[in-house]
Amino acid sequence: MASTAEHDAMRRALAIAANGPRGVNPQVGALLLSADGRVLAEGWHRGAGTPHAEVDALSKLEPGAARGATAVVTLEPCNHTGRTGPCSEALIAAGVARVVYAVSDPGDHSSGGAERLRQASVDVEAGLLAEDASALLDSWLTVQRLGRPHVTVKWAQSLDGRAAAADGTSQWITGPAARADVHRRRSDADAIVVGTGTLLADDPALTARRPDGSLYDHQPRPVVVGRRPVPADAAVRRHPLPLVTDSGRDLPGLLEDLRQEGVQRLFVEGGPDVASSFLRAGLVDEVLVYVAPVLLGGDRLSLRDIGVTTIAQAQRLEVADLIPLGDDVLYVCAPRQAQGPEEGDE
Amino acid sequence: MASTAEHDAMRRALAIAANGPRGVNPQVGALLLSADGRVLAEGWHRGAGTPHAEVDALSKLEPGAARGATAVVTLEPCNHTGRTGPCSEALIAAGVARVVYAVSDPGDHSSGGAERLRQASVDVEAGLLAEDASALLDSWLTVQRLGRPHVTVKWAQSLDGRAAAADGTSQWITGPAARADVHRRRSDADAIVVGTGTLLADDPALTARRPDGSLYDHQPRPVVVGRRPVPADAAVRRHPLPLVTDSGRDLPGLLEDLRQEGVQRLFVEGGPDVASSFLRAGLVDEVLVYVAPVLLGGDRLSLRDIGVTTIAQAQRLEVADLIPLGDDVLYVCAPRQAQGPEEGDE
Repeated sequence: MASTAEHDAMRRALAIAANGPRGVNPQVGALLLSADGRVLAEGWHRGAGTPHAEVDALSKLEPGAARGATAVVTLEPCNHTGRTGPCSEALIAAGVARVVYAVSDPGDHSSGGAERLRQASVDVEAGLLAEDASALLDSWLTVQRLGRPHVTVKWAQSLDGRAAAADGTSQWITGPAARADVHRRRSDADAIVVGTGTLLADDPALTARRPDGSLYDHQPRPVVVGRRPVPADAAVRRHPLPLVTDSGRDLPGLLEDLRQEGVQRLFVEGGPDVASSFLRAGLVDEVLVYVAPVLLGGDRLSLRDIGVTTIAQAQRLEVADLIPLGDDVLYVCAPRQAQGPEEGDE
Repeated sequence: MASTAEHDAMRRALAIAANGPRGVNPQVGALLLSADGRVLAEGWHRGAGTPHAEVDALSKLEPGAARGATAVVTLEPCNHTGRTGPCSEALIAAGVARVVYAVSDPGDHSSGGAERLRQASVDVEAGLLAEDASALLDSWLTVQRLGRPHVTVKWAQSLDGRAAAADGTSQWITGPAARADVHRRRSDADAIVVGTGTLLADDPALTARRPDGSLYDHQPRPVVVGRRPVPADAAVRRHPLPLVTDSGRDLPGLLEDLRQEGVQRLFVEGGPDVASSFLRAGLVDEVLVYVAPVLLGGDRLSLRDIGVTTIAQAQRLEVADLIPLGDDVLYVCAPRQAQGPEEGDE
């Protein structure tokens, strides 16, 4: 059982963890407590290549001062020698007597820290405030599970599935509430992908903006895929973060590159060819469709060929939510495995 | 003020009105009451070419027996000489002293009966149980207002607006609850239209069936439009009502023909070309879209060209209802006038 002091320490560790950047490494916080529950030191992780939270905390103490202490950490101490040594060894070497952590490390290379600590007779307790820590680490844990960034594909369409009218005009199919929702969700992403077709047609800024036009604090990196060059005067070149360009021919390779640059959440904004490519490749975790109560007809489709040739291969979706946004409706969906047709009659 | 006896009589008149057929003429019921509120006679209209309800009631009395009586009628007595003489004149001639009716006759040729009665010093009261009478006459009143049958266009589609997969398979995009809903709504229609493409592809029965396969009491007449012939062994040839075929090249003409055959509610079931034709012609009062949580991609579109070339011409819809049906969602919409794009930013 964790003590009240350990509960309090975990809450503090979660708060300071969030100071760290969302990136390749997880956001982690750690506190060292004396045997009677006093806080000896705090630490948090500042990103890849810098000390882990436990080591950051230990570094603030005189040698020997952590002997018999309790370490309270938001994530299982690692057992992996990367650019820094394993935290489990550091805690053992410092003479820490007890370790309380929130969530287990799912990494193939980094997990096993708890086991290593127990072997060294350190008292280990797992799962304290695990839900809060999982929420904080949500997208990092997802990246560990998927082995790539979490991919959201978003588009806006008429009810009949068109992205634009016959002449290419599309501003605005959906209303202000839907557009504000898109920007809010953009601000939660680490990178945003558009094809060169959309770039040349719409010249999007790819920033995440509040309804008053001001920028959200967290901006997605702009990524443009396709073979056509990005014009010198494109709005995306004025984005606060540097532009990434890619041929788009190797989507798994692109995702791996982005993951290594710390992208945990990717927002694929279009157009139809790019959205279809991600779906066809089975690289989509979330589908957001903003449906306007409008009919357009014609051939400007919101999706093209997604590799479905017969109805039994239909890409079925789990609809997590249907959210009214002004006159529009947002479908929040997750792709699910294709299934055969149901029994029934015409 | 209507008396209690008149209220009771109007309720009875509405009940017997419903005995009549839904068709070119309205369903109307009439009672004749003595001055002290006794029922002298009842009548109801049995369809075009037969006596109107008031005349049907009068015909049951000896000459002179209606002198000083009150007529309670669900619809304003007509003032029009068609296949039968005007009811207002018949009531005047019979010496009726008072007329109570529920809803006014909106017809260009038939209205004015109340005015004619007042000129002949008959006491006239309008609006008794008008809401109930309007509900009974809903689709007939709509036909009077529109000058044609009420047109519902229905289709089922994937979220991305496809009616079928690339190979043409489409059974079943939507689930059993959606299909049951379609059949229930079919049973409320007087005729159901499909194109020859849908007929040849799906061989639909065009009957309205309960989930157990039994036929609803009221069946829509089957109408097939297009240039290709209906095969001799087509399921639609076994429909309980006779098949109507039409080239589909003159939709207003087809609607007029159907109206003259008593069709008040028309259900246009597809496919995409037929639905698009009705929309393009501006002949749609209700749009029902059954949206399955499925993506299909490809080129089997649920709608084709509906005459929209630029976004400002988008066919905007008033969404009256969004009804969950199993995994599917039914959009119940009415077309509204196109409007210009809203102000906003990307």
